[in-house]
Amino acid sequence: MTDQRFEDFTVGQRFVSGTHEVTEAQIIEFAQQFDPQPFHLDAEAAVDTALRGLSASGWHTAALTMRLQVDGPMWVKGGIIGAGGELAWPAPVRPGDVLRVESEILEVRASRSNAALGVVTAMFATKNQDDVVVQTFRVTMFVPRDGAA
Amino acid sequence: MTDQRFEDFTVGQRFVSGTHEVTEAQIIEFAQQFDPQPFHLDAEAAVDTALRGLSASGWHTAALTMRLQVDGPMWVKGGIIGAGGELAWPAPVRPGDVLRVESEILEVRASRSNAALGVVTAMFATKNQDDVVVQTFRVTMFVPRDGAA
Repeated sequence: MTDQRFEDFTVGQRFVSGTHEVTEAQIIEFAQQFDPQPFHLDAEAAVDTALRGLSASGWHTAALTMRLQVDGPMWVKGGIIGAGGELAWPAPVRPGDVLRVESEILEVRASRSNAALGVVTAMFATKNQDDVVVQTFRVTMFVPRDGAA
Repeated sequence: MTDQRFEDFTVGQRFVSGTHEVTEAQIIEFAQQFDPQPFHLDAEAAVDTALRGLSASGWHTAALTMRLQVDGPMWVKGGIIGAGGELAWPAPVRPGDVLRVESEILEVRASRSNAALGVVTAMFATKNQDDVVVQTFRVTMFVPRDGAA
C-alpha cells in the first residue's frame, strides 16, 4: 500500500491510519518550541484557562496527523505535497489520547498547470480513542504522477 | 502590547511579528519527527522531487507562524485558541529563509455560546525575506474576554 500511485486514487476511497498516543511530555515539548501558551505548557496552570486543562496545540495535532498519513496507507512513493485546505479543531487533544486518521478521497484530477502532478482532494478526520473528532482537514494535495522519489 | 485584551482588537488593525530564520537542520529535524518525506529530509534527495530542493514541511511553517504570533504583538494574556481556518502554502520555504507574519484583523465579535470568549477572525500572511508569501491562514480564534491566564 505504501507504493500507491496517483493512478490508484479513486473518489470515495477510504483509508485508516495507524495510531499515536499523545503524552503529556510530548504536548509540553511541542508547545515549548512552537506554541508556548499556558493551556499547552503546564497541567496545573491549564486548569484555570479557557481549555480547562492541558491540551495539545492544534499545530501539534496537525503535525501528528501528517505523520500518521506519511506512515500509513495514504502515502505514495513520490510524496504528498499539500497545497492547503480547510482546518478545524472541534475538540481538544488531552494527554493519553490515542489518535488515528480516517481519510476519504473526494476528488481526483490531473493538474492543469503541471503534467507531472495529479491533484487529490480529501477529508482527513483525526479521531481519538472515543471516536471524538479532534481535527478535520479538507486538503488539496499535489501527488507526483510518475511516482518517483 | 503583549497584555492586549480582546477589547483591544478592531477590524482593520494590522500587526507585524518578529522574524525567524529557518535552517536546514531545523527543516530536517521537524520532518524526521512529523513529515518524513524525501523533499523535507535530505537536500540531495530533494533535488529530484516535485519540490526541486529541500523545503520545510507546511506544518513546520504553520508551527513557526504560531510561535511568531505568540511571541509578537498579536498575543493576549489569556491566550489565543484557534477554532480553525483556511490554510494555503503558495510557495516553498527553503533553508536560510527568514520568516515573519503580517496579520490583519477581519472581524471581532462576542461568542454566541460562551460569554467568557470573544471571536476574532484574521488573515495571517507568512512571508520570507523577499516578501514572497509562503503561507496564508484565514483563522477564526477564540480569545478569552477576561484576559486572565
